[in-house]
Amino acid sequence: MTVYNIALIGFGGVNRALAELIAAKNQLWERDLGFRLNIVAVSDLYLGSVISPNGLDAMTLIEAKFEKGGFGQLSGGNAETDNETIIKMAPADIIVEATFTNPKDGEPAVSHCRWALETGKHVVTTNKGPVAIAAQALKALATANGVRFEYEGAVMSGTPVIRMAENTLAGAELKGFEGILNGTSNFVLGRMESGLDFASAVKEAQELGYAEADPTADVEGFDVRLKVVILANELLGANLKPEDVTCKGISGLSASDIEQAAKAGSRWKLVGSSVRNDDGSVTGSVAPRRLGLDHPLAGVNGATNAVSLDTELLGAVTITGPGAGRIETAYALLSDIVAIHSAGASAIAKEAA
Amino acid sequence: MTVYNIALIGFGGVNRALAELIAAKNQLWERDLGFRLNIVAVSDLYLGSVISPNGLDAMTLIEAKFEKGGFGQLSGGNAETDNETIIKMAPADIIVEATFTNPKDGEPAVSHCRWALETGKHVVTTNKGPVAIAAQALKALATANGVRFEYEGAVMSGTPVIRMAENTLAGAELKGFEGILNGTSNFVLGRMESGLDFASAVKEAQELGYAEADPTADVEGFDVRLKVVILANELLGANLKPEDVTCKGISGLSASDIEQAAKAGSRWKLVGSSVRNDDGSVTGSVAPRRLGLDHPLAGVNGATNAVSLDTELLGAVTITGPGAGRIETAYALLSDIVAIHSAGASAIAKEAA
Repeated sequence: MTVYNIALIGFGGVNRALAELIAAKNQLWERDLGFRLNIVAVSDLYLGSVISPNGLDAMTLIEAKFEKGGFGQLSGGNAETDNETIIKMAPADIIVEATFTNPKDGEPAVSHCRWALETGKHVVTTNKGPVAIAAQALKALATANGVRFEYEGAVMSGTPVIRMAENTLAGAELKGFEGILNGTSNFVLGRMESGLDFASAVKEAQELGYAEADPTADVEGFDVRLKVVILANELLGANLKPEDVTCKGISGLSASDIEQAAKAGSRWKLVGSSVRNDDGSVTGSVAPRRLGLDHPLAGVNGATNAVSLDTELLGAVTITGPGAGRIETAYALLSDIVAIHSAGASAIAKEAA
Repeated sequence: MTVYNIALIGFGGVNRALAELIAAKNQLWERDLGFRLNIVAVSDLYLGSVISPNGLDAMTLIEAKFEKGGFGQLSGGNAETDNETIIKMAPADIIVEATFTNPKDGEPAVSHCRWALETGKHVVTTNKGPVAIAAQALKALATANGVRFEYEGAVMSGTPVIRMAENTLAGAELKGFEGILNGTSNFVLGRMESGLDFASAVKEAQELGYAEADPTADVEGFDVRLKVVILANELLGANLKPEDVTCKGISGLSASDIEQAAKAGSRWKLVGSSVRNDDGSVTGSVAPRRLGLDHPLAGVNGATNAVSLDTELLGAVTITGPGAGRIETAYALLSDIVAIHSAGASAIAKEAA
């Protein structure tokens, strides 16, 4: 039986949810997946950091009501956090990066990933920043160091759009994709269809916890744009930067636009898309689009996300599922570790051969 | 570079489409997937059989207008077909079974699969019969002989519902599924929503080639029932037989039922489903259900299929795509061979280790 020692970088909602899953599911995973997870380090900007080579009890980590600097009370703990030291020195097989997304330059998460890969540790992350900004460089670094850089959760939380496109649809010849990649804006559009104006719909989304105090990234398409970059680079072999993707949000849609679409048997959706052009180049865009009701994305309601993959041999294949959520996003990290485990099993066999 | 020698059992629409893909794509597959396919035998009830150890030209096979017994004219050919001899004697790595589906006892396809596996050949098939009736026994036989039995195309043609549930959602804890698994009946329901009565909608489906002369298997749910059995046994570890699954079709739905549903903001869909009960047992059913418009399957239109997987960690994850089609189903065979190739690569490495 395999044990993976993991270090959690950031102890907010997602990594806390992963710790909850570890506390509840390790035995099940041992039986069904062939491994268990052991938390050997945690760092958090607010709580501090701790390294414990024998492993920290997941339940204790979740239940202790730590205050600012609280990890300093633990054996091996420090009230301050020093991510570079933690990532480089922790006896971890896998670094779990779940700090905040910086859409500008991906930092400090890009450095977190680099430190990990350079010291021969796998990285799994749900952080869009380093993936959108530096996936190619970080994947090359991973390969050079014989480890993996996995990020299923950077798009659609645990809904496995990346692995579906790359593994289960291998050979189907992907030509492009269109997706509903932001639950908040999709929720807002749905509420506008029920008669609310844009401002009231955003307010309701904020009250329900779907939208942040500043909803700009969601409703202006910037969040979707990062996801389009990630998927286009990963699935279509592009090398796009965020500024290469045209971006228009939904704040310009009026109640009357929504109403006219309904009358014409269509719906407005904020669609992020990318396509491989005839000359081999790949372009991406984010824009509100009026979709006929028979479009694969037209029926995607509420905060749900979906990506419709346009393939040569199968036509459209669409995957629909959660796009956010603590546990849903923590599952993405688990699915990345499953992928590392599967690859590791054959890599070990190949090495021995 | 790997070459897989394959034998095609049955040379109707699906295997003919596979031969077309081989003719067009072998070079691409060599580059992108790491293997090419070489047809070393073909047998067909009408055309006869042929074994050619060096390989048959795929283009010739497709373009020659063979008459009854026409394979007899080829070198190594025979105007009669003897599937047992072909399957056992052909120098094939993989047997591609695409004969007709027999929902009663799965024969003769079950025997085709057994002969192949017993003589150490992988089997890939799109035939629901042997999978619904004998998957467990055939998988055990495959394992005992160190080969694989793969059948992604038995449900939803090339849309990869089986591998998505088993591989990319590993650890998400599947609890059950609901699906629209028959394009013909879904098309008929859609036309009834446009105002046709049941008989006229079926007639239109027949004219468009969606429904067979005898539409019973499609509209009475028997086709869906086989698919529910396949998915429940494969994904939920059940051991269901077709007669264990309750089955009701759509022929009892009237224009007024359809209309009332629309008025209530819902739609009738023929749903095949299965669930793991609290006592660990697995039950399945096929029945028309009135779905609210926010149900993940409510927006699935026309001849498209979809399966919504109910998972513990992600909630509903839905995959939507083609459920039929020559090329789409032939792609399922390719995807099975990709899976064999991936597993084979690590198996060879393990053996060498």
